[in-house]
Amino acid sequence: MSGWLADNRERVFADLTRFLSIASISTDPQFKPKIADAQRFLLAHLEASRFENRRLIEGDGHAAVYADWLHAPGKPTLLVYGHYDVQPPDPLEAWTSPPFTPTVRDGRLYARGASDDKCPLFVALTAASALLAADGALPVNLKLLIEGEEEVGSKNLESYVRANRALLAADFVLSADGARWRADLPAVNVASRGIATLEFALTTAAKDLHSGRYGGAVANPLNAIARLVASLHEPSGRIAVEGFYDGVAEPTNAERAAIADLPFDEAAYIAAVGASGPVGEAGYSTLERQWLRPSLDLNGLWGGYQGTGSKTVIPHEARAKLSSRLVPGQDPARIVALLQRHLETHCPPGAKVEMKAGHGSPAYALPPDHPALAVAEAVLAEVHGRRPVRVRIGATLPISDMFKRVLGIDTIMFSYSTADEDFHAPNEFFRLSSFDDGFAAWQSFLRRAGALAPQDFRAFRR
Amino acid sequence: MSGWLADNRERVFADLTRFLSIASISTDPQFKPKIADAQRFLLAHLEASRFENRRLIEGDGHAAVYADWLHAPGKPTLLVYGHYDVQPPDPLEAWTSPPFTPTVRDGRLYARGASDDKCPLFVALTAASALLAADGALPVNLKLLIEGEEEVGSKNLESYVRANRALLAADFVLSADGARWRADLPAVNVASRGIATLEFALTTAAKDLHSGRYGGAVANPLNAIARLVASLHEPSGRIAVEGFYDGVAEPTNAERAAIADLPFDEAAYIAAVGASGPVGEAGYSTLERQWLRPSLDLNGLWGGYQGTGSKTVIPHEARAKLSSRLVPGQDPARIVALLQRHLETHCPPGAKVEMKAGHGSPAYALPPDHPALAVAEAVLAEVHGRRPVRVRIGATLPISDMFKRVLGIDTIMFSYSTADEDFHAPNEFFRLSSFDDGFAAWQSFLRRAGALAPQDFRAFRR
Repeated sequence: MSGWLADNRERVFADLTRFLSIASISTDPQFKPKIADAQRFLLAHLEASRFENRRLIEGDGHAAVYADWLHAPGKPTLLVYGHYDVQPPDPLEAWTSPPFTPTVRDGRLYARGASDDKCPLFVALTAASALLAADGALPVNLKLLIEGEEEVGSKNLESYVRANRALLAADFVLSADGARWRADLPAVNVASRGIATLEFALTTAAKDLHSGRYGGAVANPLNAIARLVASLHEPSGRIAVEGFYDGVAEPTNAERAAIADLPFDEAAYIAAVGASGPVGEAGYSTLERQWLRPSLDLNGLWGGYQGTGSKTVIPHEARAKLSSRLVPGQDPARIVALLQRHLETHCPPGAKVEMKAGHGSPAYALPPDHPALAVAEAVLAEVHGRRPVRVRIGATLPISDMFKRVLGIDTIMFSYSTADEDFHAPNEFFRLSSFDDGFAAWQSFLRRAGALAPQDFRAFRR
Repeated sequence: MSGWLADNRERVFADLTRFLSIASISTDPQFKPKIADAQRFLLAHLEASRFENRRLIEGDGHAAVYADWLHAPGKPTLLVYGHYDVQPPDPLEAWTSPPFTPTVRDGRLYARGASDDKCPLFVALTAASALLAADGALPVNLKLLIEGEEEVGSKNLESYVRANRALLAADFVLSADGARWRADLPAVNVASRGIATLEFALTTAAKDLHSGRYGGAVANPLNAIARLVASLHEPSGRIAVEGFYDGVAEPTNAERAAIADLPFDEAAYIAAVGASGPVGEAGYSTLERQWLRPSLDLNGLWGGYQGTGSKTVIPHEARAKLSSRLVPGQDPARIVALLQRHLETHCPPGAKVEMKAGHGSPAYALPPDHPALAVAEAVLAEVHGRRPVRVRIGATLPISDMFKRVLGIDTIMFSYSTADEDFHAPNEFFRLSSFDDGFAAWQSFLRRAGALAPQDFRAFRR
């Protein structure tokens, strides 16, 4: 079947180049016409690929593109997820070639959206259309959901999915979005941390005060917020918020052994970001801290004078934004409530605290015996000649949790982008070799999934 | 002699109005011509007032205006200090009448610089020129030093004074700058706190990191700076920096009793600034904390994302500015060194601290038996019908320390502005009643000082 790609490569890459040339930036309303261009491009491309039932799923935001091919009775139904929107390309002057002029250099295809998510999506679409072209049929039922708001937090996706439950019903989600852990190691991602965010302000007076006239006699909100923030962690790095670890399971020996067995060069990892060393909760390794343990980080902290020189002011307020990464067993709303109680009870004398909860999403874990996970592992072993490792991700993938809640199904991350491809940064690229690997892997995945039956997934539906 | 002011009031206020109309803003180079206008106005006014030896003291910054009258052999020599420069008037739209169009409303003269320091300076000049006009002589020798850089930290004043030691030699400084504690209570200020400033930055990595991918495994500079700042104080409010209180004398019972005897409505004082209550070092009253105890305040603290919504970033650096108010016995350079040692030794793991010392000035205390202090107290008792209380100021008056170091003489603060006259803010004003009180007080001061001799001050020179 690599013969098919060899025979059709020119046409496939011409199409991909057209797709990458569309500045489908979702964060900026002035690019709305380009969003529409991308939708039209996909609808036409899916028609040419013989997908059926093509349509836009419309609502408050940018429409999602839907299409399907459902002529494999008795076979599983896969919902393929991807997105056609991209990040803004700023700063433009940092790009070697223009962001919407796709350019190949040294085996890499440079363009905004190349890695996130247009090439990985095109890998999936090309693999399916090649099967349809060659065999006249697919080994499974396939539904495609390609959204246009991933880069703005998929803010309308849940309502689109809720409104189209029957249309989108499937046995599992196969995601063409999300990055592989590393280019040098086949891996399948089986879990991601959740998130809970909160911002708060401390107020100590009605106006800024002179530090000479008032210093030492009234509360200083900067000193107070420092004390309050410091109270969130024990010196050991453990989070000091009462009840925070309720429901959090200690890593099992097997989990710890599996992580310890992974090839991971901690020194190189730390050096790559210019840090002086790993820092975190005592008793855990770096990967355990990132994958298995919750965290609590300030993302912003500010108050008072930030200009040149000194200004002898006691400001009257200080502000902070914080976010907590969650693990299974932690409910985002409960974590926010615990944080709020902590901030209230630990608020230093003379300061008033006001808080505003942000967004939340729980951790997600793929059941270790999910049949699609076994398929993914077999495929990766076949394509890369090496059994993949199971890895987790410290970041949050809210769509996995959303699909589980709304459609009751699990998500397998099967993107062929890698974490080093500068997505969200200038000179984003996609490795051309990943296109061929991904094409082979997606075809293999669809074939192997065709050997399963819908009832194989019944136990995993919720 | 109030007859003289009544007879000449129209001319005096016409002159004062011209002086207040000059936008002698020292912080903005575009107002340099107005600075020159103010210098010319003063030189002409001093000539008309029969002061001699008029000149500009020039150097790197705006020139200071000098003049003298030295025909009282055997009498003390007073160096009168004031300044002709003003703060910028922004925000302009907040002014009821334009800042450089002096306007009288309800017994108050509104203009930028009215309270700080043009009216108080004019009180001093008018009192002296009235005596010269009426008597043809002054009861003391008088030197005037009117600088043009007070609002930019008197940054060249020390070099001007050093270069003109003989010209400026005197028995003590009588300052027309500085504010009275309260309008309702005659008081004389006998001490001010010093200051030491420092800014520092914590760095944890070479770039900002994703809080999902790295959270919990690398140091967060915001959490780290909070912990570092929190380490500066004990929960009791005492400063936790080793050696910080070395040389600081405990307040004596007499000092504490004198402060406790002052009419001071702590609840009203706290309510006026919208604070919820007094907060400070355990074991001390609010006035003791402000006047007798050193303080350590953050003036600015920042890092990470400050915009709307959340951004899941672990920033790579955090910054803070701090200042410490000092009491007698504390050397600013040593305090900065102690703070630096504390910040280094308490810097959390994974963070590097970089520090930059700012400016420093020691505390100042007028000798309680200084003859000019006795004069000031007698004058205030005479003018206000009530013996003044001795008060301190929590803020820093660097010129008092500078005159002591360079000229070896003490400074008596004798301004007739009050702390509530919105200097450095829109709608700055000066009470017209203060002009008459101040005129009477300055004339009385000069007469009473004429009863002393230079040798009375010998023991206080350094």
